[in-house]
Amino acid sequence: MTGKYPILVFDINETLLSFESLERFFAKYFDDKKVLRQWFSEQILYSQALTLSRNYYDFGELATSVLQMVAELHNLSLNDRVLLEFKQLLGQLLPYPEVEKGLEMLKQSGFRMIALTNSPTLSSQVSLERSGLRKYFENVISVEEVQQYKPAPATYRRVRELIGFEEKYCMIACHIWDLLGAQSENFDTAFIKRQGNATLPNLFQANFVADDLQELSKLLIKKY
Amino acid sequence: MTGKYPILVFDINETLLSFESLERFFAKYFDDKKVLRQWFSEQILYSQALTLSRNYYDFGELATSVLQMVAELHNLSLNDRVLLEFKQLLGQLLPYPEVEKGLEMLKQSGFRMIALTNSPTLSSQVSLERSGLRKYFENVISVEEVQQYKPAPATYRRVRELIGFEEKYCMIACHIWDLLGAQSENFDTAFIKRQGNATLPNLFQANFVADDLQELSKLLIKKY
Repeated sequence: MTGKYPILVFDINETLLSFESLERFFAKYFDDKKVLRQWFSEQILYSQALTLSRNYYDFGELATSVLQMVAELHNLSLNDRVLLEFKQLLGQLLPYPEVEKGLEMLKQSGFRMIALTNSPTLSSQVSLERSGLRKYFENVISVEEVQQYKPAPATYRRVRELIGFEEKYCMIACHIWDLLGAQSENFDTAFIKRQGNATLPNLFQANFVADDLQELSKLLIKKY
Repeated sequence: MTGKYPILVFDINETLLSFESLERFFAKYFDDKKVLRQWFSEQILYSQALTLSRNYYDFGELATSVLQMVAELHNLSLNDRVLLEFKQLLGQLLPYPEVEKGLEMLKQSGFRMIALTNSPTLSSQVSLERSGLRKYFENVISVEEVQQYKPAPATYRRVRELIGFEEKYCMIACHIWDLLGAQSENFDTAFIKRQGNATLPNLFQANFVADDLQELSKLLIKKY
């Protein structure tokens, strides 16, 4: 490694914590685990629409509203108990198997690490504590602090404000829209190509691309 | 009717012009017409992500990039001829059967009408001319003029700038995210509940809801 390392900024949902338990939810109530992708696309679409139209609702509150929207499209109606079950699952996601190993490698190599998430402050802290990952991160920053969702510039700027304007940053996520925003704030970008996610040909290129966090950690340690 | 009518601002894609030909495209190349919904959600998600991150690409250019993204998720690779076919279909959508009748009713009742679309200026003008609907609209405004996608406030403000700040407006669309933005700029809102679209329970309510434009026209004529 040469020069000063960038501070690594991690997305949490689906980048570190797996949506597998949500897949099981959709298999159970929608009879099709792939409906998870429809829900998540609409969830992100509406989080962005709220930010563009200068509104803000908690990510969990939005999640159940969007879930009801998706249920209606599948001619289903979900009762309050099922909506609560979904909200609870969303707050109890488990890490991908290689994640802890990858974070440990980065920590050992001297990288400083931060998490930046669309989830509320409290639930993201609890999720990381429960999964044993909290210790790797100096800060866990929620978009709740700026009441705008990623990829709004204010969310990445919040990182700079808290950590320092002099530092160099690299955003790590499995969603191109998140990297688009980080890049517009002059962060380097690293894409983890989780199943169900793909790149945006011709329009966006990340600085690093890997299939999982352990592979990415090796790339980052080698290149910086 | 009482008082001054609002100026009606129409979304074009899927609100006036049907996605039926695009469904056929997805049935042909993806073997599943429902993939259209996946493509469209990602298209809107990424148009918003571009605007939030202060980027802009033409809607048609974005459409083929997002189509390739969706193809990758389905383990398909589309050649340039197929991408061009898609772009052409997107510029040649046909009106829903009741649309002309509904617009005619509104025109006869004295409403002023404008179109506001995410599509580029030229292709939206051509689409409306081809389908015989151009004559109903005083202006056809593209978000290209402000280089931001709906529901960014600048897109609705562009209508006010062109038509007048004194006027009252009502946005008509079959997508809640579009109405969210219009409402944040103090437009009234009317939702046409086209198949494949649903409301956002607890978080948003339109002033008018109808199953098609003819039904909505009756509501608007009666209520204003």
